[in-house]
Amino acid sequence: MTLEEKASLCSGETAWSTQAIPRLGIPSIFMTDGPHGLRKAVGFDFTNSVPATCFPTASALASSWNTALAQKMGEALAIESQANDVQILLGPGVNMKRSPLGGRNFEYFSEDPILAGKIATAFINGVQSQGVGTSMKHFAANNQESERMSNSSNVDERTLNEIYFPAFEMAVKEAQPWTVMCSYNKVNGVYASENKYLLNDVLKEKWGFKGFVVSDWGAVNDRPLGVNAGLNLEMPASGGFTNKKVVEAVKNGTLAEATLDEIVIETLAVTLKARDSHKTGIVVDKPKHNALARQVSGECIVLLKNDNSILPLSTSVKKVSIIGAFAKKPRYQGAGSSQVKPTQVENAFDELQKLAKGTSLTYAAGYTSDGATNETLIAEAVQNAKDAETVLIFAGLPDVYESEGYDRTNMDLPAGHNQLIEAVAKANKNVVVVLMNGAAVTMPWKKEVQGIVEAYLGGQAGGGAIADVLTGKVNPSGKLSETFPMRLEDTPTAIDFPSKDGNANYGEGIYIGYRYYDKKKIEPNFPFGYGLSYTTFSYSDIKTNTATAKDTDDIIISLKVKNTGKVAGKEVVELYVHEQATETSRPENELKHFEKIALNPGEEKTVSFHLTSRDFAYYSINTHDWAIKSGKFDIRVGGSSRDLPLQQTIDIQSTKTAKIVFTRNSLFKEFKNAPNSGAIYEQLSQSFSGGKKAVTEEEKKGEVFLQAMLADMPISKFISMSGGKFTEENLQAILQSANAN
Amino acid sequence: MTLEEKASLCSGETAWSTQAIPRLGIPSIFMTDGPHGLRKAVGFDFTNSVPATCFPTASALASSWNTALAQKMGEALAIESQANDVQILLGPGVNMKRSPLGGRNFEYFSEDPILAGKIATAFINGVQSQGVGTSMKHFAANNQESERMSNSSNVDERTLNEIYFPAFEMAVKEAQPWTVMCSYNKVNGVYASENKYLLNDVLKEKWGFKGFVVSDWGAVNDRPLGVNAGLNLEMPASGGFTNKKVVEAVKNGTLAEATLDEIVIETLAVTLKARDSHKTGIVVDKPKHNALARQVSGECIVLLKNDNSILPLSTSVKKVSIIGAFAKKPRYQGAGSSQVKPTQVENAFDELQKLAKGTSLTYAAGYTSDGATNETLIAEAVQNAKDAETVLIFAGLPDVYESEGYDRTNMDLPAGHNQLIEAVAKANKNVVVVLMNGAAVTMPWKKEVQGIVEAYLGGQAGGGAIADVLTGKVNPSGKLSETFPMRLEDTPTAIDFPSKDGNANYGEGIYIGYRYYDKKKIEPNFPFGYGLSYTTFSYSDIKTNTATAKDTDDIIISLKVKNTGKVAGKEVVELYVHEQATETSRPENELKHFEKIALNPGEEKTVSFHLTSRDFAYYSINTHDWAIKSGKFDIRVGGSSRDLPLQQTIDIQSTKTAKIVFTRNSLFKEFKNAPNSGAIYEQLSQSFSGGKKAVTEEEKKGEVFLQAMLADMPISKFISMSGGKFTEENLQAILQSANAN
Repeated sequence: MTLEEKASLCSGETAWSTQAIPRLGIPSIFMTDGPHGLRKAVGFDFTNSVPATCFPTASALASSWNTALAQKMGEALAIESQANDVQILLGPGVNMKRSPLGGRNFEYFSEDPILAGKIATAFINGVQSQGVGTSMKHFAANNQESERMSNSSNVDERTLNEIYFPAFEMAVKEAQPWTVMCSYNKVNGVYASENKYLLNDVLKEKWGFKGFVVSDWGAVNDRPLGVNAGLNLEMPASGGFTNKKVVEAVKNGTLAEATLDEIVIETLAVTLKARDSHKTGIVVDKPKHNALARQVSGECIVLLKNDNSILPLSTSVKKVSIIGAFAKKPRYQGAGSSQVKPTQVENAFDELQKLAKGTSLTYAAGYTSDGATNETLIAEAVQNAKDAETVLIFAGLPDVYESEGYDRTNMDLPAGHNQLIEAVAKANKNVVVVLMNGAAVTMPWKKEVQGIVEAYLGGQAGGGAIADVLTGKVNPSGKLSETFPMRLEDTPTAIDFPSKDGNANYGEGIYIGYRYYDKKKIEPNFPFGYGLSYTTFSYSDIKTNTATAKDTDDIIISLKVKNTGKVAGKEVVELYVHEQATETSRPENELKHFEKIALNPGEEKTVSFHLTSRDFAYYSINTHDWAIKSGKFDIRVGGSSRDLPLQQTIDIQSTKTAKIVFTRNSLFKEFKNAPNSGAIYEQLSQSFSGGKKAVTEEEKKGEVFLQAMLADMPISKFISMSGGKFTEENLQAILQSANAN
Repeated sequence: MTLEEKASLCSGETAWSTQAIPRLGIPSIFMTDGPHGLRKAVGFDFTNSVPATCFPTASALASSWNTALAQKMGEALAIESQANDVQILLGPGVNMKRSPLGGRNFEYFSEDPILAGKIATAFINGVQSQGVGTSMKHFAANNQESERMSNSSNVDERTLNEIYFPAFEMAVKEAQPWTVMCSYNKVNGVYASENKYLLNDVLKEKWGFKGFVVSDWGAVNDRPLGVNAGLNLEMPASGGFTNKKVVEAVKNGTLAEATLDEIVIETLAVTLKARDSHKTGIVVDKPKHNALARQVSGECIVLLKNDNSILPLSTSVKKVSIIGAFAKKPRYQGAGSSQVKPTQVENAFDELQKLAKGTSLTYAAGYTSDGATNETLIAEAVQNAKDAETVLIFAGLPDVYESEGYDRTNMDLPAGHNQLIEAVAKANKNVVVVLMNGAAVTMPWKKEVQGIVEAYLGGQAGGGAIADVLTGKVNPSGKLSETFPMRLEDTPTAIDFPSKDGNANYGEGIYIGYRYYDKKKIEPNFPFGYGLSYTTFSYSDIKTNTATAKDTDDIIISLKVKNTGKVAGKEVVELYVHEQATETSRPENELKHFEKIALNPGEEKTVSFHLTSRDFAYYSINTHDWAIKSGKFDIRVGGSSRDLPLQQTIDIQSTKTAKIVFTRNSLFKEFKNAPNSGAIYEQLSQSFSGGKKAVTEEEKKGEVFLQAMLADMPISKFISMSGGKFTEENLQAILQSANAN
């Protein structure tokens, strides 16, 4: 293989395919957007792609908390890929939702890395089980769309490792995606596409990623630097321009040919596997896939409010008013590279009519396609509502509100939608609002309506799924995969999102999503992990196999959940960990495990979780590794991050505790762990106070202050602070004896 | 001078004095704590110092917003220094209040750098006008007491320059303190005492500081590194130990002797000036200084609530119940190095009795010295309150709550104080709470009482000042120099303060104090700049000499303030600036100027402020300098940060705007400023879309998304993203033509 050929293998041949070298039998493979449906396009034309099943977008899918279903959806996507000769599906997107305003939030799973990681793992396993590769994206810290190609995400090491990395890490370790897509942005000043820390040190070396790294389309800045950092494939094709640069770099010695060889080998391994896995003669069963899309969408829907059991619609309700253009022309996906040309589209009005045959449905549009309304439209809707027993208002975000390429500027529905809801709610008390949107919105009318259904962007069969839930054919079981805050100002990044001066400083650190609202004691509109059902569940009998454990032990938490209502339903059982000690800043609760279970009325099941050391650990910037401080941890279990009725405390003994080495910079208080601490304290205190004993009240108070001040003093400071009474020789003697054992 | 002598001059001779070299006629000078009174101590014994006037502590003084008074207080402190042969007074402390929990907040002025800077400047000018030096401290970013000798304050460059530096900068430029004291902590990983960026680059070179830098007592880590970085004087004496290290460093070449020479010269210049300025035969007029302390304290008191004009006490009120041990044994200063042995102490009970001769005062202690209470004490207080027409409850923080050396763990009064107030407020509707504390506290009983007086730590005559205010002898005119938040969780640093893992990450950036509460729309208990008077003021007639100006122009804002009440009073007129453009993240309002004026009933005065470019600027991390973006700025004036009735908008034209140089990394949208932007846009768009015009609704929507995505794209990306239609040659041609002019 010539140097030129090697270089050519690390860049595309076209906008979507890799370079073939027929002479060497190296095939080209084809990659296609996107995470919830195939967008096999010609060039960059977003409006011309092959018809494909549009599944619910990621923010919906994660709200199902159903990994088996995510896997099944992945399998279906792979079948459609095979049928279209696509080798790599460009998804899933696992970035964290740092702000509800992120333009691409609808394409991402969650504000929590464990939830995102588990859904991603299942999705990837599903796709890849059918011989099609995935491209987990966008690595890393790609959390705003504004100026995404030039902005630097400035994130501290602990935050990267605890929040922005784990979803990637888990999926790499448990699903080995064939490819990982690096993001457009810089991370701490270095483009992701040429960030050795990200691509080589963390992804490939630390996590053991075996596939290839592809650039997001256009994410390459300096390709030789990229190759050096671990970038395997530049996309799209640059017409040979950057190939020449790679060749030059090797020739002038700034890029080692051995490095290029490794990069080529990694790329080829996946290319050949992809071609070998290609299946011919696959035909997509479109109705079957549409039915699957409807099933998935039904599990994603989150019932947020259901006063007086207004839902499911009673069969005794004979007149239902359907308001809102989304009922007939649904919003079901987001804009940008993930936009699919659906095989069909179900709308809620028609699907409701099919399911509720004996019910009379009336309709009023209520607003125009841009979200505006006017007196006529409102008057019509109000009149319509007055005549009905129950009113279903379909509202949400018009598609220009949510897109790849730019961020939202506020968290509100269009003013027209809010005005419509307020007006209709005044005319009829039995109002249910059904929302179609890809991310959290505010709800100024929350108290005025009886029901709220968050349907997210439910894909092409979303309308049918909504009908299933409204009529009770499907009992809703989705839970929020992101906090719905009361107002934008409450969000952790409210002050400066999106950053527009080139630097997004992640000052909130690990405190995004519920970690922030919990710690700041801010009441959210609806908390992370929350969602209602048409039945009720009770939690009981939490048990552990051990109340004290080493962090290397297998810890089992079991508990019982019972369906205490009258219909079958599914419950997401969520397990959070809380560290009691406060030395290290840690969240109030952190999701570590979850399981979705189905229960018939009266049925009870035992759910068990296996906890391992990582579930208790934080990332230490001192050791650059996960660490646990020995102490008590509360295991909290329940059906929402803010409703955790069960708790079990476990005393964890860390086995990784490094032997303390006392140095001249060790603080006075740290010597409490020294073998001869008593004598050391006596000597140091005396050197300071001169051995004078406090007698008067004033002197005793002075002694309290003095001790408090000494506690935080590095012992080397006693030399100057004691005015020479404590000498360098004394210091050395103390260190020697403290470190003796 | 020998090398050893040079080294010796950069360290102390004793705990408080510098090294003399009689052979060369170099005298020793004596330094003494602290910022609100002399603590001329023997060694480190906090309980044994010469009697001195204890003035109000810094948080009180700043609440006066009276620079003339701060100067006067400085003069008095200097007289006491001269009388005690003290050459340098170790103050003022100008650090920002990053959290209300900061243990040393009582020693610091404000959460706002302009207020702190102006008070500090006046104070320093006052002290130094009498031939005594000051030591402005603690430079820099020393905002927590916990682990203060080992913690690193990690602060970005903009935040340092906009928030943590300006008080130091202003005082250096306008008052030239003889010395600046560097802090214990590290800043961005480097000890302040050996931080070249802080001591040399910023303090000495950028700001032109002419004095010497002294280490906080014990702040030296590696003295040769310190000397190299600009540290002049190590304190206290290290018994010659570190002198040897400096000598060694010069001998082995790691420290240039020329550097040491400069350091010695800077130190000696101040030493000689100090000795030359010494005055003999000065005798302190203690009663006069006590009277000044009472006057200052009276101006510091902030009237927070005064429903139904319960204050001043009407002469018709004949029975007043005084509750709370602080009424007889006041809390009037904080603990630590600033603790003064007062010449006398006034308590509010006795002083009230003197002023309100015809009134019967009863007393109940209500709580014990540690802040606890019990049924007996409460019952006694309640009984006492029931018998009175008006009740004055003295509450606050016992002295162990606020000290150098450790931080508060919460923002609450002792539970006993709150219980007492709640109980008494139930027994009598006419309750006034008088608070003695050094920093913001919560007030769960706020709605239950009619009056709240924040007396802060008012110094030895604070009790008298309180009596003056309660009786109306002094009309209160203090305004809060810090926000009083509703609860700890509302504070910008609530999640991780104080840091205890070695790194305090200043993630909130420039948004501390009111900058945070304003931006997050969090309602404070009482806002920054707020304070009531016994009279009322009206604001009118805001005018400017120009509505459009270059940033180099002298901009004058004038307005009228009228005393619309019935008694004479003083009003603090506060001027804030707000930038309308939102490209750069900027606070809602930033204090830039203020003036305290006295007005008789019915009297009206015109107040004028001169604004300069700095008042509109932000600190740019790109140019490492102050920058202004041309645009509209609102000048807002009023009597509180949340009550700014006057507004004047000015269109500022920046003269510092650098010529735009277009590069391959310039974003598509930035070319709107290029001379031939139209042609460039056409060419770039065409290369992407292939010139295809959008026709259908779907295509038009696609076009919107495409344009949004292109806007933020660096133009170099068009090469790969256009699939070769846009070439490197096209790019070069565009850059050449865009940069032609």
